[in-house]
Amino acid sequence: MRVEIVAVGTELLLGQIADTNGAWLGEHLAAGGVASHFHQVVGDNLARIVLALRTALARSDGVIVCGGLGPTHDDITREAIAEVMNVGMVRDEAVADAISAMFVSRGRTMPPSNLRQADRPDGTSIIPQTKGTAPGLVCPLGQKVIYAVPGVPYEMADMFERGILPDLQRRMAERGELAGVIASRVIRTWGMSESALADALGARIVQLDAGAGAAPAGEDVGAGAAPAGEEGRATIAFLASGIEGIKVRVTVRAATQEECAALLDAEEAEVRRILRDVAGDVVFGIDGEAIEDAVARSLVGTGWTLGVAESLTGGLISSRLVNVPGASAWFRGSVVSYASEVKTALLGVPPGPVVSEAAARAMAEGAQRTLGATIGLSVTGVAGPDRQDDQPPGTLFIGLALPGVPTEVIATRVPGDRDRVRQYATISALDLLRRRVGAVAPLSPSPAS
Amino acid sequence: MRVEIVAVGTELLLGQIADTNGAWLGEHLAAGGVASHFHQVVGDNLARIVLALRTALARSDGVIVCGGLGPTHDDITREAIAEVMNVGMVRDEAVADAISAMFVSRGRTMPPSNLRQADRPDGTSIIPQTKGTAPGLVCPLGQKVIYAVPGVPYEMADMFERGILPDLQRRMAERGELAGVIASRVIRTWGMSESALADALGARIVQLDAGAGAAPAGEDVGAGAAPAGEEGRATIAFLASGIEGIKVRVTVRAATQEECAALLDAEEAEVRRILRDVAGDVVFGIDGEAIEDAVARSLVGTGWTLGVAESLTGGLISSRLVNVPGASAWFRGSVVSYASEVKTALLGVPPGPVVSEAAARAMAEGAQRTLGATIGLSVTGVAGPDRQDDQPPGTLFIGLALPGVPTEVIATRVPGDRDRVRQYATISALDLLRRRVGAVAPLSPSPAS
Repeated sequence: MRVEIVAVGTELLLGQIADTNGAWLGEHLAAGGVASHFHQVVGDNLARIVLALRTALARSDGVIVCGGLGPTHDDITREAIAEVMNVGMVRDEAVADAISAMFVSRGRTMPPSNLRQADRPDGTSIIPQTKGTAPGLVCPLGQKVIYAVPGVPYEMADMFERGILPDLQRRMAERGELAGVIASRVIRTWGMSESALADALGARIVQLDAGAGAAPAGEDVGAGAAPAGEEGRATIAFLASGIEGIKVRVTVRAATQEECAALLDAEEAEVRRILRDVAGDVVFGIDGEAIEDAVARSLVGTGWTLGVAESLTGGLISSRLVNVPGASAWFRGSVVSYASEVKTALLGVPPGPVVSEAAARAMAEGAQRTLGATIGLSVTGVAGPDRQDDQPPGTLFIGLALPGVPTEVIATRVPGDRDRVRQYATISALDLLRRRVGAVAPLSPSPAS
Repeated sequence: MRVEIVAVGTELLLGQIADTNGAWLGEHLAAGGVASHFHQVVGDNLARIVLALRTALARSDGVIVCGGLGPTHDDITREAIAEVMNVGMVRDEAVADAISAMFVSRGRTMPPSNLRQADRPDGTSIIPQTKGTAPGLVCPLGQKVIYAVPGVPYEMADMFERGILPDLQRRMAERGELAGVIASRVIRTWGMSESALADALGARIVQLDAGAGAAPAGEDVGAGAAPAGEEGRATIAFLASGIEGIKVRVTVRAATQEECAALLDAEEAEVRRILRDVAGDVVFGIDGEAIEDAVARSLVGTGWTLGVAESLTGGLISSRLVNVPGASAWFRGSVVSYASEVKTALLGVPPGPVVSEAAARAMAEGAQRTLGATIGLSVTGVAGPDRQDDQPPGTLFIGLALPGVPTEVIATRVPGDRDRVRQYATISALDLLRRRVGAVAPLSPSPAS
């Protein structure tokens, strides 16, 4: 199966928003062993959506069209599919009832245009909604198929997992196609620059490139033509991602998910070994594990609680921590002391410059005391663009008050504009916390190796 | 001229990076009055790049192909263009000399593969490099044209401005096409659903559709077929954007930027009037103005300061507020009272359920008092997935303590998962704040009408 992605929306053509759905679907199709050789973007225009769908059907076996399923007049993907299929439109009464019921349950009057979302081309089936109102569509055309999903990213992703990927895999099984699998693993780091990572892993990358010369290049992986059991060559790439750290992505290909997992395990261990030798404990997570998840992992089981005092990060540190399910077990809260008087009154910061080691120490201990927490974490610094307390933008003081040891303050400087400085300040503070807690906490799990 | 964008790169298909060049080019083509109806993405595969280029030439007058011009074995855009043009490849000696000289000047040995960047299909001309090594190409095919530029965003942008847009405008002038201009304005709202907005503006949309029957629809603006001086028809579209509110985008076309601005001013006033009549003060900003900017605008000049008490939003409200330049003039800080004990100890919340009107009131007044602020804003609620204090996920209590009036608490319910609920809680709280301050503050500027 070769599947083409068609993103619908004039705002995409005009560059008002970037097409992130195409990238998400490309990644998840590849992970599911489905080839995707072309993507298209087209505006909210019936004739052109029809042309884009016909173009896609001419060169691919399936099409995923994203967007244009909403209730408004410029949502015309349903009509375009009906024209391509040469069928009329029918109203799905079950969907219409569900949409009406949703409005009733929220005590709102339903605008009549919402019922357009219950229309579907005759001969198609729906992918039910769980997160919004417009259902997705599965539209067979002989041996080919069009899937339609909303353009809202989380609705699109949900329907892909539930309604599209299983259907594609069934079709591939019927065709006797081997669903070869591509898999990636992201090793997330903080504490080395992207070029330092590339230098540290340079010899390993050369080794991998020389290794398996027979593996197919680029997007051909997953096209289903390769024999089972052929070992995939690992590739390594880097991606700097602000508050998410710097990512090292390892990609492999094999006949099955299990074989991919074994290859990834081996390569992950090798990358971890190399980085640990060069720079110590820089790997904080794998794949979707964010820095706040690493913090939570270090704290769970210790019985310790955390209080935060933030200045330039303005609540960013605490807003990340509450993303972790179960954070209420260990997160007490945060004092966002943006004004200097708040630092003094609530946290006991002494008179003098607030961008200083002394202020960071007092803030960490103040957070511990005021918020009734075992651990106090603080950040003060200069987001920019102007200097403050005679310090340049990017200056950070990170304080950490742990039980039974003297309060520690780290001074550092990070590059970038106001937003970047805040992001780096947040990940730097949380990274310090997870390293120190991992090293000293009474019941902490041993660090992954 | 209708120009199609073709982005080349397997990493784009696999979703390893998002195609930001397509969005940039779409925006800048529109601003230059050039229509773009389709974008494509294709991998580093000769036959498929050829097919993508032929598809684009079949439905557009020009093609901009980005990427695949570098020195490595998978940079094959030059070869694909030569195949489409049915010509051989020639080496451009001036380019070859320039590339060699660059390596010499940096004291580096040139890998021989770099000279591939000096090759070009016979009959084409180059767009010289100023920022990298691979030149761009201008490739005529009868009345049509392919432009090739590197995929590196700043090299692509530089060559577009210097080599592509002037050439396109010359071609449009030769064809007697008006190089009109497309412009958009985003009217940002909170307080109405997307479908309620669509219904409120439905009659206006019908009116606009009926108005200039001769004008092309949607992305057709800029298609170049309209005679000079013809007034562009406005089009209206909607986009729900989480914490950024629900956006109403008005797009117009006219001969000049000035005429576009006048059309947009008129249509913005009309949309504001309609929405105000239906639902009151739902417009909080224009274009890049976020809800925190609207809050800042309402506060500046009042002399009032703001303190926040957050629970389920976990610092999201304050982290948005500190985005605003100059926030330190009015933002005191925030107490992120995630644990109930922190609500009691720091904010004076009485015993009892913390997801309640009483808790929201006490938090708002506690923030006012504890943070020494004129205004206290609070949010408590249930992010989910579980119920809390016998309230379902999405339940919100927003408290607002303003000087001289009794503290107000709004109870509401918002849809979505944990992350959505937090985003809606944040924008709902900030929207309440900017509405009330705008209405009662002593020196507040009069609301836009």
